[in-house]
Order: sequence, then structure tokens, then C-alpha cells
Amino acid sequence: MTTRREQTSQESRELILAAAAELFAQKGYRQTTFADVAERSGISRGSIPWHFGSKEGLLLAVLERSVDLIRSGYAGHLERGAAELDHLMEGVEALLRQPTSKLFVTLLVEALEPDSPIRGRYVQIHDTLREQCRRWLEHLPLPPGVCAEAVAVTIVGAVIGIHQQWLLAPDRIDPEEVLGTLGMLISGALLTVRG
Amino acid sequence: MTTRREQTSQESRELILAAAAELFAQKGYRQTTFADVAERSGISRGSIPWHFGSKEGLLLAVLERSVDLIRSGYAGHLERGAAELDHLMEGVEALLRQPTSKLFVTLLVEALEPDSPIRGRYVQIHDTLREQCRRWLEHLPLPPGVCAEAVAVTIVGAVIGIHQQWLLAPDRIDPEEVLGTLGMLISGALLTVRG
Repeated sequence: MTTRREQTSQESRELILAAAAELFAQKGYRQTTFADVAERSGISRGSIPWHFGSKEGLLLAVLERSVDLIRSGYAGHLERGAAELDHLMEGVEALLRQPTSKLFVTLLVEALEPDSPIRGRYVQIHDTLREQCRRWLEHLPLPPGVCAEAVAVTIVGAVIGIHQQWLLAPDRIDPEEVLGTLGMLISGALLTVRG
Repeated sequence: MTTRREQTSQESRELILAAAAELFAQKGYRQTTFADVAERSGISRGSIPWHFGSKEGLLLAVLERSVDLIRSGYAGHLERGAAELDHLMEGVEALLRQPTSKLFVTLLVEALEPDSPIRGRYVQIHDTLREQCRRWLEHLPLPPGVCAEAVAVTIVGAVIGIHQQWLLAPDRIDPEEVLGTLGMLISGALLTVRG
């Protein structure tokens, strides 16, 4: 049973997250202050660290919300396997085009600092992405000797690296074409019946 | 003809770059100062901005030296095409394991800042990597309808993303296994003769 107080706390959390996601995308992560988030969300400034600890904590929560969206949005596709490959790549493209996706890159450098407090949670985000990918691969007839985990690292890696190249050179990289090519490479390597 | 003064300037530049590469890898980019680089290289502190402008300029020059090493080191392999795929992936693994490769990630966030002065040069580094990959692909019989440029973005992307997952979770990601899988996917998708 959820009490009224818990419900309000949950609602405040959501309002803060939605406001922060918008502001990070518009103004950038570094330029956004707790005061900006308070103003946009209508929630008092003091509640933000109460909910999220620090600004990195808030950023991580914004990213985790994105990952939850991936998890729920893809649940259906993942069970349909290979036939849905083109559809899956369209979903990945839509995800990369979300302004908040850029924050994955911003946070990466923080996570790589020695003794970073957010490293463990960032690794969890990568784990979730790889797990989604492995679940999808379970429905494919992988060739003998191919390890699903290594394929998942490769595919998640390709999406990460395509995203970054596109962020840096949006006029030269066409994510639709490149993700289509990734789909074709996966399909050519894993779905071709060998004689 | 190179004058004695030009030669000395070139030598100083090299000594600064070698010292900076070591220090960035040992202490981290943010923690390294011009004074540290001066002490390690034996070149006066004031010469460093004269050669490289800013600390970001120095970092970019360190990275460009890595890219030059890739370019010269791979020139032979790139012309030998498919037969060298395993060998090529071993070379990529050795490159990712170089401590300075982590700096590619550090600099990425700086390059993504709006109006970043280093963005253009970072994009050039990506361009060089893609161009090397395209040159290698020229020796392969690509299936009809497959665009070498899009395949290059995908492969370079996979290497970038595999590198980052490994940096974050070195105990869970085995770069040798994953790069071997990438090689197998490329070979399965592009080198299989279709009936």
C-alpha cells in the first residue's frame, strides 16, 4: 500500500526528473543549477539533494529513466527476434535522437575518474543495455562457437560509437543509414544459413 | 632544408609530447599541469603554450601522435585485406590497451561542448580512423548495396564502444574475445560468398 506521503514524494521526484531532463538537453548539464531545476519543476530547491544526493545523482537518475524507457519500450520487440531487426534499429535511432542521450557521453567522463562514486551505477546502465541485447539474441540461431555476451558487447559498442560519431559530425553521419548497415551486418553474420 | 633552430623546436615538441603522454596516462589529464610536463621533459614551462596553445591543444597533439602511429603501423595490414583480419584486430587490441587511448574519451566531452575550439580537430581524428577503415574495406568484395562509408562508421563505432565498456568494467569485458567476435561478425557479414 502506498501512503499519501510516499505518493507525493514519488510525484515530486518525477517532476524534478522531467524538468532536469529538459534543462540538461537545452542548456547543457554543466550550465544547469539546482535553482533552475527548482524553478522549472515547481519543487523547492532543497528537495532536490534530498531525492538525488548530488547533481551527478540527478543526472544518473535522468539516465536511468531513459534506460527504463528502453526496457519497457523494447520488451515486445525483443521477444519477436530476427524479423524485427529493422524495427529494432528504428527504435535505436529514435533513442539516439533524444536530446538526453547526449548525457550518456557527458557522464561517461565523470564515471571514468578514479574512485568515481557514480562508476558502479554507470556500469549498471551498460549492463542493462547488454542484457537487453542478449535477450534479443536468445531468439536467434547463433552460429556455433559464437558467444552471445561478446556479440552483445559488440552491438552495444557499435551503437555507442555510432552515436558519438554522429554527435560530433551530424552533417556527415546519417544515423538511419549507419544503423541500417549495422542491422545488415548483424543479419548477414548471424542470420545467414550456412551451407 | 631544415635549419638548426627548426630542428631544435621539433625536438622540444617531441620531448614535450612524450612527457605529456606519460603524465596524462599516469596522473590523469586534469591532474597534470604544465609545470609537471616541463619538469618531466626538461623543456621550459613557457615553451609549452608556445608550441601547443593550451592544455587542450597539448592533449590533441598527444592524440594526433597516436593516430599517426595507427596510420603508419597499419599501412601494411590495410593493403593485405581480409586475410589479415585477425591480425588487424590484434593490432586494435594493442592500441586500446595503450594507456593514452583513455584520453580519447576524456577529450570527447570537451569536444562536444557547444563552440568547442577542439571539436574540428577531434572530428578529424574520427575521420582518419574511418578513412583507414574504408581503405581496408576497399580490398574486400562488399555485397551489393553496402556502402563502405557506413560500414566504416559501424566498425569504428564498435571499436570506440567496446573500448569504453572495457574501460568501465575491465573485469567483465575481455577485449581480446570481443574484438575477435567483431572480426567474426565482419567476416561473416562481408566475406561469406552467398548462393
